[in-house]
Amino acid sequence: MQDFQDLKQAKTSRPLIPEITNRWSPRAFSEKPVEDQDLRALLEAAQWAASSSNQQPWRFIVARQGDSHYEKLSEGMVEGNKVWASRAPVLMATVVRKNVVGKDFPNPHARHDLGLAVGNLSAQATHLGLSLHQMAGIIPENIERSFALDPDQYEVVTMIALGYHDPSRIDQLKEGHAQSEKAPRERQPLEELVFGEEFGRPAPFLRD
Amino acid sequence: MQDFQDLKQAKTSRPLIPEITNRWSPRAFSEKPVEDQDLRALLEAAQWAASSSNQQPWRFIVARQGDSHYEKLSEGMVEGNKVWASRAPVLMATVVRKNVVGKDFPNPHARHDLGLAVGNLSAQATHLGLSLHQMAGIIPENIERSFALDPDQYEVVTMIALGYHDPSRIDQLKEGHAQSEKAPRERQPLEELVFGEEFGRPAPFLRD
Repeated sequence: MQDFQDLKQAKTSRPLIPEITNRWSPRAFSEKPVEDQDLRALLEAAQWAASSSNQQPWRFIVARQGDSHYEKLSEGMVEGNKVWASRAPVLMATVVRKNVVGKDFPNPHARHDLGLAVGNLSAQATHLGLSLHQMAGIIPENIERSFALDPDQYEVVTMIALGYHDPSRIDQLKEGHAQSEKAPRERQPLEELVFGEEFGRPAPFLRD
Repeated sequence: MQDFQDLKQAKTSRPLIPEITNRWSPRAFSEKPVEDQDLRALLEAAQWAASSSNQQPWRFIVARQGDSHYEKLSEGMVEGNKVWASRAPVLMATVVRKNVVGKDFPNPHARHDLGLAVGNLSAQATHLGLSLHQMAGIIPENIERSFALDPDQYEVVTMIALGYHDPSRIDQLKEGHAQSEKAPRERQPLEELVFGEEFGRPAPFLRD
């Protein structure tokens, strides 16, 4: 376990909270169920994110292994994700309310604000020893149809597999997935992301 | 100070990490500057967020009070935000890379993933006693023009005012702003956000 924490820990020049540095996206999940009260904590974390004009555009469809609708959610993933994620103890679909409340024009920040909420959810999950793997490789229409979402109001954005990481299960993954499970995490240098006076040139304070 | 922490703390049924419960969006900022190394920590937190196919679409334009481009960023806010936010020790514009790297089609998760990054930034800021106020009330074109962003590649999404909250400065805010500074935070109940078998009906585990 300790080995994985070292391998996957974010390499930063400044000390960051462990809820950020220890987060990564495994595919090998234990069968251990997620306690309902922990699941609730994660969703309360999401609930208290900031949002544009406090619109709170985020919605979550949640299924635990054994729930009658787990299979329906599972059908929302592309095959390459279903092979590993349909073993996770919890699946979620993230959804946004597309329009501004009470208006018939779009909230351009809906997806951004969903991201803020999932960022909170993710930090709280990491704190509780849980891992999530967010997926863009999904078939939103399948979920939108199965759960009868009003297409004028809501759309599915991502899916999330949630549970406890279990290194002993890596061998059950496809080879490419098993490899990425054991690979260090990579990020672009901060100098390519953070600019000052000129867009594209590193902010001077990064050098200090 | 303690009073504000009580007033603004998220009301949750489960204990959450303080980086989430203590976060709120003040408008009254102290003049105390943000140390460069803390600013770097916040941006490293953002850097290590998850993103779809590890695309890392987030970019940040950062100005500290006194930087020559602080004023240019300030011109990116609508008047209602400029009145209070142009006193903040740090201003940022958040930007997304619109297309998938190496492709000429959009990354539909760019804004969502920027949200994940800002979620991290926000948690790390809260940990360091810093506050941020994200703004949708901006004039993206002003910043895109001033900083010569390539419109095919990048777009400005939000702005962020960053610094230390200073309750002694609330009296300098406009009345509406001063009031919201002293008002408790409000959220929709979890039962309206988290669904199970049926979209729109509370997930049963919320009752447990």
